[in-house]
Amino acid sequence: MTINRQVLLAGRPVGIPRESDFRVVHTPLREIHDGELIIQNLYLSLDAGFRQWMNEGASDNYLQAMDLDAPVVSITLGRVIESRHPDYAESDIVMGRNAWEEYSISDATDFLTRLPADVPFPLPYYLGILGPTGLTAYFGLVDIGKPRPGEIVLVSAAAGAVGSAAGQIAKALGCRAIGLTGSDDKCTWLVDTLGYDVAINYKTCDDLKNEIKRVCPDGIDIYFDNVGGQVLDTAMACLRMRARIVLCGAVAQYVATTPVSGPSNMFEIVTKRAKIEGFMFSDYVDQYPAAIEQLGDWLKQGRIVNADQIVDGIESTPAAFQQLFEGKNKGKMLVRLLASE
Amino acid sequence: MTINRQVLLAGRPVGIPRESDFRVVHTPLREIHDGELIIQNLYLSLDAGFRQWMNEGASDNYLQAMDLDAPVVSITLGRVIESRHPDYAESDIVMGRNAWEEYSISDATDFLTRLPADVPFPLPYYLGILGPTGLTAYFGLVDIGKPRPGEIVLVSAAAGAVGSAAGQIAKALGCRAIGLTGSDDKCTWLVDTLGYDVAINYKTCDDLKNEIKRVCPDGIDIYFDNVGGQVLDTAMACLRMRARIVLCGAVAQYVATTPVSGPSNMFEIVTKRAKIEGFMFSDYVDQYPAAIEQLGDWLKQGRIVNADQIVDGIESTPAAFQQLFEGKNKGKMLVRLLASE
Repeated sequence: MTINRQVLLAGRPVGIPRESDFRVVHTPLREIHDGELIIQNLYLSLDAGFRQWMNEGASDNYLQAMDLDAPVVSITLGRVIESRHPDYAESDIVMGRNAWEEYSISDATDFLTRLPADVPFPLPYYLGILGPTGLTAYFGLVDIGKPRPGEIVLVSAAAGAVGSAAGQIAKALGCRAIGLTGSDDKCTWLVDTLGYDVAINYKTCDDLKNEIKRVCPDGIDIYFDNVGGQVLDTAMACLRMRARIVLCGAVAQYVATTPVSGPSNMFEIVTKRAKIEGFMFSDYVDQYPAAIEQLGDWLKQGRIVNADQIVDGIESTPAAFQQLFEGKNKGKMLVRLLASE
Repeated sequence: MTINRQVLLAGRPVGIPRESDFRVVHTPLREIHDGELIIQNLYLSLDAGFRQWMNEGASDNYLQAMDLDAPVVSITLGRVIESRHPDYAESDIVMGRNAWEEYSISDATDFLTRLPADVPFPLPYYLGILGPTGLTAYFGLVDIGKPRPGEIVLVSAAAGAVGSAAGQIAKALGCRAIGLTGSDDKCTWLVDTLGYDVAINYKTCDDLKNEIKRVCPDGIDIYFDNVGGQVLDTAMACLRMRARIVLCGAVAQYVATTPVSGPSNMFEIVTKRAKIEGFMFSDYVDQYPAAIEQLGDWLKQGRIVNADQIVDGIESTPAAFQQLFEGKNKGKMLVRLLASE
């Protein structure tokens, strides 16, 4: 009998999730029925956005609140090891919304997609720059931000998974990229490794608004927002006419223990004829192939890189997830479940 | 010598503007130079939005802070009584950004536009439904809101100048119009006179969010926002997928004496793939004629009405302006300076 190690949601996090909010259990893997398949997960994708659904009563058009004492919902990439589903065969590499567990039983719903055989890049890329993370950055920037060459793109949580991709894509599209992050080390990484034009340490600069205005005296054209809250408010004070705010994430809101106050000066949006727009990468399914091809071309040309940080073993998952909210990661955070892959 | 009665900004209002913030003075009208013209103002347009520019240091891409002890900046409609400007002649009826005064000297900048001779509707219409107010409602709804027949349009300050136009235009476009206002009397007026489908008295209903959800169980497609602040926050909790928020005004912000807290749940914008966008009617100059023609057609067909409230005499201006912020007006508030017009 196969034993499946799973990470359960043991309690609802208050603010930043802690290791103690999770519990690892060993569960026998059940037999599958017709229409199901077993995925041996190779990589777990750790995404700050999923913190939102750990709250009691969380619910939106994307996900319902996660159940307590159930495996934590997550995007995973794995290999089919047994299939009673007509569309999937053993050895298929698939990605989908499964859970923090070594094996997932799937009925092929929940966004399950198969990767082509012999993909040209390492598997972690398909959870990073060529997966949901990169596609989120790509569609947010291209479809919502609609950048023109020479425009200024400000990115918050710029060293995070989506932020690290957004800045690089902005550069590949001929824009000037300004990144906000929380340490000097990450500032250096943004500029030297990812090609951001300027990085601002929002924790140590005297006044973030003044600093943004110093770097961009004429204001910003696009603000790619991964955090919400106070930084969004500050960015809104630095807009150029007809600026676009791409609302991608709201880490400040996910971990807030009291209501986050929103932007105080919405009238800026009127006088600047600006736009704030939300999106989900999953709205663009029909455009995935073209986007992945474009991102792959840029990778081959060395114009962008896949930035990730990989930890090993399912027991490492809770601590790695906590690190996301402590700003300790550079790029996409992944858990590798099989050392050989 | 002609004496010009003018209303000066005597002090910067704190919160709601009071009569005591203004002072009426009698000033001799100076001679004009080449390139100038004298307008005898017939109507002053009172617009809540201009409150914003009474604040110290107010400045945006539209207007600078008004000067103390200078005539209060305002849109006016008047007749040219003397012209040394090649493009204007005596008797021309013109509209422009002038001031609260009986006579304005203009160099024909500041958005001065001439009305055609023999216009088919009464002059006040050209400051109301066929003027900046109606055009603001029209372009906001049509160009930013992009309504489709059958969609639900929620309008705040629905009995105000722009709100009273927005609801009627929504109806003319085949939408369902829900209005928010602050008295039962105005609720009745919205439904019986303007044709709103439903009006909600936000001051007396127990819980505005619940009330909106009761009236629109599936949520709203377009929120036409004239107030900002808490009402914007509430409306954002009632959005349908791909909802559009038309940011038109922010009365709550204009009169706030402490910073207005913005929408607390910006993540709703992400999960609903919604959009918040600001605009100014003056961005659409090239589309004025077509819009005015459309609005005129609807007027002739009886599908919309011009809703205004007219007070007489320049001395009435400060009190009438104050009333705008006390929710006492129904429709566009105008001051008539010549009883004969």
